[in-house]
Amino acid sequence: MADSLADLTLALRAFAAERDWEVYHSPKNLAMALTGEAGELAAEFQWLTEAESRDLAPAHLERVRQEAADVLLYLTRLADRLDFDLVEAARAKMVLNAARYPADKARGNARKYGEL
Amino acid sequence: MADSLADLTLALRAFAAERDWEVYHSPKNLAMALTGEAGELAAEFQWLTEAESRDLAPAHLERVRQEAADVLLYLTRLADRLDFDLVEAARAKMVLNAARYPADKARGNARKYGEL
Amino acid sequence: MADSLADLTLALRAFAAERDWEVYHSPKNLAMALTGEAGELAAEFQWLTEAESRDLAPAHLERVRQEAADVLLYLTRLADRLDFDLVEAARAKMVLNAARYPADKARGNARKYGEL
Amino acid sequence: MADSLADLTLALRAFAAERDWEVYHSPKNLAMALTGEAGELAAEFQWLTEAESRDLAPAHLERVRQEAADVLLYLTRLADRLDFDLVEAARAKMVLNAARYPADKARGNARKYGEL
Repeated sequence: MADSLADLTLALRAFAAERDWEVYHSPKNLAMALTGEAGELAAEFQWLTEAESRDLAPAHLERVRQEAADVLLYLTRLADRLDFDLVEAARAKMVLNAARYPADKARGNARKYGEL
Repeated sequence: MADSLADLTLALRAFAAERDWEVYHSPKNLAMALTGEAGELAAEFQWLTEAESRDLAPAHLERVRQEAADVLLYLTRLADRLDFDLVEAARAKMVLNAARYPADKARGNARKYGEL
Repeated sequence: MADSLADLTLALRAFAAERDWEVYHSPKNLAMALTGEAGELAAEFQWLTEAESRDLAPAHLERVRQEAADVLLYLTRLADRLDFDLVEAARAKMVLNAARYPADKARGNARKYGEL
Repeated sequence: MADSLADLTLALRAFAAERDWEVYHSPKNLAMALTGEAGELAAEFQWLTEAESRDLAPAHLERVRQEAADVLLYLTRLADRLDFDLVEAARAKMVLNAARYPADKARGNARKYGEL
């Protein structure tokens, strides 16, 4: 992992160490905490139309930013605890997705790859 | 956003454009898809003890990597659609968290900040 | 709890006992499993418009039914393990919600109660 | 659906009607709201050990009850909007699960059915 996420990883590691939180940060617990934050992120959009979700008021956008940040923080911490590179994993997944969803077959529909 | 996540953002933008998927990628839908992937990530750990979750077999770790990657992909795409910098948002949230959880009060417990 | 959910509770208790699964069914693990199923349920709707979600094809509706069933199964099991009555809890929450969202103030908007 | 959940269904229908909330309660939105509540439920357990999760303090148990109630309320409402019987769906799923997880093969392990 290069750069920005690497810095974040180190900052989170120090943050947890200063608070003796390593004991809480098992991969299981971090994955569980992440679902909580993903749920809070979803809650910001649940009663909006799709069009409204594209055009958030500034205060609403700020709440979304904070919830998205929480997801990234737990995700980064999880990857650190399991010692894998998050961006590398994402790139590998994109290669897989490109094979699963060939552009000519996937164009303009959102069917799962099993149905293409 | 510097570097690795910036590259990922551009790659995801191209991936969606080639498939005419922008219409599906409203912030609302992306947040919803993210909860699905967060749930799949959690499912990888649900019956494990915390100790087991720290010591995954290679095939299991690979599944976790792929699910974590999916979460990052949707999160990156969401931030792009709402035009904010994910790493900057995470850094700002860490500053907030440092104020909410002073190291001397938070040490060794996981109480929410309202209870400290 | 009366009736149908009570029967389901007993059936799930027997199902787990026959498989020696009680050890896995801590409240923590059941809550985690529930998020996974909630995520699968959400995934069934993630790329649909709201209008499409009201008018599912039969095979799609059947998948939704199965995912909703999974959520109910884990929720029922969780309530059993923590020894509370799910329907009674739901009724109590509705009383609370009625106070939080007075009909005359909440009509036609979906603001959170703090904002009413 | 008999009895207690049927009553709850009707109560929720009236609650939404009195507030003109039907427009928000598309199946898509309800599934999304459910993931938010499932995430809040998970958050109640995220830093607990499994043993602690079995032995909650009264105030903590009350929070869990309320979050579990929220999940049931949205699940019940979703089933109503899609016009299926939740308990019947759960029973059908249990039949399927019994076939997927034969007691003699599933005993004492939590492997997915594909791996049995």
